[in-house]
Amino acid sequence: MTTADTFAASSDGARSARPLRHAKRLDLPGPFTLERGGALPALTIAYETYGTLNAERDNAVLVCHALSGDSHVARHDESDDPGWWDCLVGPGQHLDTRRFFIICANVLGGCRGTTGPDSIDPRSGAAYGPAFPEITMGDVVRSQAALIDHLGIERLRAVVGGSMGGMQAMLWATRHPQRVAAVALLATAHRLNAQALAFDVVARNAIIRDPDFAGGAYYGREHGPEVGLAIARMLGHITYLSRESMQDKFEADRHRPRPLDTAFEAQFSVGSYLAYQGERFVERFDANTYLRLSLAIDRFDLGADPSVLRDAVAASTCRWLVVSYSSDWLFPPAQSRELVRALLAAGRQVSSCEITSRAGHDAFLLTNELDIYGPLVQAVVDGGSGSVPRTVDALGHDAGAIFYHDRLDYERICGLIKPGASVLDLGCGAGGLLARLRDRDHARLVGVELDQRQVALAVGRGLDVVNADIEAGLAQFATRSFDVVVLSQTLQAVRGVEHVLEEMLRVGATAIVSFPNAAHRRHRERLSRLGRAPETTGLTRYHWYNTPDIRLVTIADFEDLCELKGWRVRSRICLDTATGAEPAGDPLVDADVAVYALSL
Amino acid sequence: MTTADTFAASSDGARSARPLRHAKRLDLPGPFTLERGGALPALTIAYETYGTLNAERDNAVLVCHALSGDSHVARHDESDDPGWWDCLVGPGQHLDTRRFFIICANVLGGCRGTTGPDSIDPRSGAAYGPAFPEITMGDVVRSQAALIDHLGIERLRAVVGGSMGGMQAMLWATRHPQRVAAVALLATAHRLNAQALAFDVVARNAIIRDPDFAGGAYYGREHGPEVGLAIARMLGHITYLSRESMQDKFEADRHRPRPLDTAFEAQFSVGSYLAYQGERFVERFDANTYLRLSLAIDRFDLGADPSVLRDAVAASTCRWLVVSYSSDWLFPPAQSRELVRALLAAGRQVSSCEITSRAGHDAFLLTNELDIYGPLVQAVVDGGSGSVPRTVDALGHDAGAIFYHDRLDYERICGLIKPGASVLDLGCGAGGLLARLRDRDHARLVGVELDQRQVALAVGRGLDVVNADIEAGLAQFATRSFDVVVLSQTLQAVRGVEHVLEEMLRVGATAIVSFPNAAHRRHRERLSRLGRAPETTGLTRYHWYNTPDIRLVTIADFEDLCELKGWRVRSRICLDTATGAEPAGDPLVDADVAVYALSL
Repeated sequence: MTTADTFAASSDGARSARPLRHAKRLDLPGPFTLERGGALPALTIAYETYGTLNAERDNAVLVCHALSGDSHVARHDESDDPGWWDCLVGPGQHLDTRRFFIICANVLGGCRGTTGPDSIDPRSGAAYGPAFPEITMGDVVRSQAALIDHLGIERLRAVVGGSMGGMQAMLWATRHPQRVAAVALLATAHRLNAQALAFDVVARNAIIRDPDFAGGAYYGREHGPEVGLAIARMLGHITYLSRESMQDKFEADRHRPRPLDTAFEAQFSVGSYLAYQGERFVERFDANTYLRLSLAIDRFDLGADPSVLRDAVAASTCRWLVVSYSSDWLFPPAQSRELVRALLAAGRQVSSCEITSRAGHDAFLLTNELDIYGPLVQAVVDGGSGSVPRTVDALGHDAGAIFYHDRLDYERICGLIKPGASVLDLGCGAGGLLARLRDRDHARLVGVELDQRQVALAVGRGLDVVNADIEAGLAQFATRSFDVVVLSQTLQAVRGVEHVLEEMLRVGATAIVSFPNAAHRRHRERLSRLGRAPETTGLTRYHWYNTPDIRLVTIADFEDLCELKGWRVRSRICLDTATGAEPAGDPLVDADVAVYALSL
Repeated sequence: MTTADTFAASSDGARSARPLRHAKRLDLPGPFTLERGGALPALTIAYETYGTLNAERDNAVLVCHALSGDSHVARHDESDDPGWWDCLVGPGQHLDTRRFFIICANVLGGCRGTTGPDSIDPRSGAAYGPAFPEITMGDVVRSQAALIDHLGIERLRAVVGGSMGGMQAMLWATRHPQRVAAVALLATAHRLNAQALAFDVVARNAIIRDPDFAGGAYYGREHGPEVGLAIARMLGHITYLSRESMQDKFEADRHRPRPLDTAFEAQFSVGSYLAYQGERFVERFDANTYLRLSLAIDRFDLGADPSVLRDAVAASTCRWLVVSYSSDWLFPPAQSRELVRALLAAGRQVSSCEITSRAGHDAFLLTNELDIYGPLVQAVVDGGSGSVPRTVDALGHDAGAIFYHDRLDYERICGLIKPGASVLDLGCGAGGLLARLRDRDHARLVGVELDQRQVALAVGRGLDVVNADIEAGLAQFATRSFDVVVLSQTLQAVRGVEHVLEEMLRVGATAIVSFPNAAHRRHRERLSRLGRAPETTGLTRYHWYNTPDIRLVTIADFEDLCELKGWRVRSRICLDTATGAEPAGDPLVDADVAVYALSL
């Protein structure tokens, strides 16, 4: 086993791309056996590192690249070439190279230094070409594990990756559970959907049916399958962008293509862009690598069946972060939701965020939404500091709201929850209630929150939060997966009241619900004396015409519903928030807040 | 000018596809000049007809086919080959061949009988090949007009088309306004979006860079660009399906491809499907035709700028129907919305429907949503019978609702509208108020309705209805484009009350709003005596937890808002629906319905 400081490219001409300046080289003796049969006689891994491995060797983060990426995740210094994730990795960045030891390796089968189809087969002295065996994401991760061994690292702080890189992170989590504390997945899926798979099929057909492909034995010839590879890349580019972002990029000057000396069509601005991208790609990428990696992506599959997927992820022990982007139609958020559901069903620690974005699949490489995904990645790599950022005070809650300052119902809700119970908090915001519960000894605490910035704040506090709309999102949670499900001061803003309450009582043994009593004396008098609608939550900037509170909930009406549904009221606490105590008189008239614990 | 009963294919071998059995042939002497320069020395049109042209010659409907279609829109009899729109066209179908004379012609540049690149150029005696000039949708429509002339038809009852066929219908409407009474467009757009254009660019590159393309001069050679054309078709197929429908089709047996003898990849079920589709397409379609039509589609452009588009459609005088499908990502509903907005701005008669569908672009050819789009197409071709289907009574309104039987507010609203005024009715349902107004002499009556089945009912009554959510949809309407905008009994179900009212007062000079008064004596008492929330609209199947009424609107609160906003109250009618009259006492207490006319 030898390591060179810089990677020395083979000088045989098989490798067309310029070797990467800062890449180090690890040569491992073979044979390196492969999951789908066969073995490589030897294995070279090209990798780059950033920052310093600390004495405890516990600050290492592995970053995994996507299909067309390489080991150069970030620039090493000002004079260096740009890296593909400079916005996330660097000194003072979210993946801070002053604190973490960042590792990024070109994948097995790649064409930027690690052994791939264009490498020399030591047995023949010529490039592998078509003889290069089929590889899997599992093979890629096993080769990375050998690199991590070589670097003397027992356990990674985190594995981070987007797209194909996220697939590698999933395998680290499930196949090397003891070696990784957290994984952060961006814009990826546990298996491709049929449409994404179909695009890969067309791209591969464009390559293999190019006459210059020559069955893959094109090295040393005048031409390889440049046309087919360019067509594949053009197609890829369309799938990496969203319809919106293509419109933004190419609409204004649709009929003014960039002048380009090309044999491809260049009649529209989008045409000259695709022709340019296709032709540049051919200069730096190898068609056989494209085929091998594309097929490895297509075969990657943690399970279509929810229970198979659940069992697959149940092998993990780390904390998971699953980030998706709304306009990513190659790896759509709905697929990330399936993965999150499986992780929740398996009882694993997971946070998720479906980031609103116009940038499509490429969003994970861009700065557009970095202010959301950057802190999220940072939080799970950090392991959760527990500190609450100041911005928690700017939650969108109105300081004039009755319940804001004291949240009297929090205390009462905590009082209804037995120590040790597992708790799901719906509409958790930045995690106020969960943070309060964390100080006690609870088995499992999870939040659900719609607002992405709140999710980022709560995850930053070390809490596990699923980004979902509670009107639809409880389907992600398995039946009886929590002891207690809490909905505090939100029922009045829920459209599907029955559905949400039924789901709470499906997911949890106990549902705790607090709401403002719309039949409190003050509201009755407002309607009967002034002819004006009650403003129950006292959010002073809202009025009847713009309040998010779309239901008037009264204690009497709520109890009618419980009776109608056959829900058992285990506890009822009626509060007069003016005194902080239970009212002496008729609670239906004198309480402005009610807290119920229900069960089936 | 000669017509043969059946189309006789050229016998020179240039035309590979089998001629269509029932196609008739019209030979027109040249030259036929083309919009982008050049001319054809002669023009042959292959077309089929169904049904009988009546003595008045006013029952003719032209159906326009899409990129890969032909003149065989439907079978002529039981023993005939299937047509591409058998579900819509035939005896007793929505386009009823017993009532209408249906015409469908293969397009100019096509490869199924009409003059195209694979036809013989009479000047050289060989196929046109690369010498075939560039054509436009305008050329296609001009050739169709020559056919209609030949058939002795002055004015078409309708032009109907989906996808590329819809583009032809748009040009019929705008360039031959006197010759068409109605157009029905399905799954189309006034110009491609950048993403759809990009797919076409990649498809054309696959063809033109296929070495067997030979610059287009491949006729008579052993091979044409079969690989490139198959790749183009595979790509097309992905764009015609939705992600959901691909998942439905290919997920269950992803790893069990159909056994197929092919040089294309056939490793996944979707792969064998694409390979099969690609190879079959090559047998029946000509690559040069694909290039010419694809480019004609890409150049079709009624205007990116809203005012240019408005001016383009302003040339039309017919009634328009614009149908889109929610999962059609090639021609997304948002683009149809732009077209509808332009038609409304131009003051043209338009109805639209954004049909909820999983079937993608192909939905317009399938039976999945035929129960919605079939009646809509039928209605605009019929010209609107004015009769109200029985199902209007099953609108989803609850027969127990206070306002259902009498709709006292309708009478009052009609009383507030001056004869001759143009009226926009928001949430028009099946058109009850509009039908009542139609009996008077109104300049323009348009409805907006969210429910697709209600839209179909109202369009069936001959009304113009735009399918939109009023919370977002008023952006489609130009400022001051109506005298009166009506919102009857809906304000209490609106989330963005301010926005909707502001939009009403932007679009109309007068806004008429009716709502149930939540401060009516009955509701006051319900809250103050029973501690229960008011149920203002009396829809007996709804309760506090599931009512669509999310706002309590009181007369006092509403007037406060008007004052705050500076809206002038032109009229106020307070009603006690129990008596049908204005109450004698305090209307804030004794009226259960209020009708306001507002202006700025």
